[in-house]
Amino acid sequence: MFTDLGYRATTTKEIAARAQVAELTLFRHFGSKVEVFEASVLAPLKSYIEQWSRSWVDFSTEASLEEMATRLVEGLYPLIRQDHRIFQELIAARSDPRSDLYPAAVSVSAELRKGLRAVHDASFDVANKYGIPGDDKPATIGAVAAMVIGSVVLEDWVYPAQRRIPGRERMVKELIRLIIDGTTHREKP
Amino acid sequence: MFTDLGYRATTTKEIAARAQVAELTLFRHFGSKVEVFEASVLAPLKSYIEQWSRSWVDFSTEASLEEMATRLVEGLYPLIRQDHRIFQELIAARSDPRSDLYPAAVSVSAELRKGLRAVHDASFDVANKYGIPGDDKPATIGAVAAMVIGSVVLEDWVYPAQRRIPGRERMVKELIRLIIDGTTHREKP
Repeated sequence: MFTDLGYRATTTKEIAARAQVAELTLFRHFGSKVEVFEASVLAPLKSYIEQWSRSWVDFSTEASLEEMATRLVEGLYPLIRQDHRIFQELIAARSDPRSDLYPAAVSVSAELRKGLRAVHDASFDVANKYGIPGDDKPATIGAVAAMVIGSVVLEDWVYPAQRRIPGRERMVKELIRLIIDGTTHREKP
Repeated sequence: MFTDLGYRATTTKEIAARAQVAELTLFRHFGSKVEVFEASVLAPLKSYIEQWSRSWVDFSTEASLEEMATRLVEGLYPLIRQDHRIFQELIAARSDPRSDLYPAAVSVSAELRKGLRAVHDASFDVANKYGIPGDDKPATIGAVAAMVIGSVVLEDWVYPAQRRIPGRERMVKELIRLIIDGTTHREKP
């Protein structure tokens, strides 16, 4: 329900009804709606991001730039897209310390940035191999991650008016292409 | 005050105090806080985006890809960065129809997408001139705009952990570079 409707639009009353338990029983197990959300959505989400982060540490130096771009996009884009309502709510909460989702937003965003740090570190090997002048990796990683995440969560803002918004397959292909071409072919400084 | 503190954190009481008028006088001229916001922030913001959109229509076919990427980044990035609190609030409101900022968010996002449609249309000329195979322009424009806007509004999400977040100058340089390299060098389909 959280994934389909988002955090705000989901009520503990409906959760209890779907789980065929009394709302009181729900609250006996979880202190609040945010705790149900933590257990059902955030814990698996964070564990996915953690696993994804770890995968970069063992990332073979044999990997091609194409494999790296693919892993980056295919690790993030479908995740964000599947939970796009939740990410939109977490992003909104991240800049509003009074929100009840603020602690959750802080912890998910920190986990994601840890993963991007692993991408950052892994990218040195690939860059050396391809002779890509990696003048400003934090800027490159930041821009690329903004592109992948923003393509989903900023959907109402970034696509040309009066054109159909491209679907998942087109966007994954385009994002991988832009990352590969965008990070190669640079002139050496 | 709206630009510095954001919409939520600004109160009509403080606005009235700074303007050295009674709060009642403020409400006599503007019906509500959102109307003060519309007049002081949104109207100029929308007119800036409109002007920027129009500038693409007359965009010379003589322009280089470098000039196009520069105009895109320098037209958007500083705008979003200067008003980043307001954009974060508008983006949050855009996915929450119950928000009092929802109508404002719908109208600003529509204006932005109109501008990106103008970029989309202008890009055909440049693509033809450079022989860039423009297989999926809505996807390219969407990804690129997500990158520029997301680099600011998703700041808490996209930069590698334990590295300093790059400042404006580094990001503008990196974004232009990624757009130029990312859209050229493609193999013809």
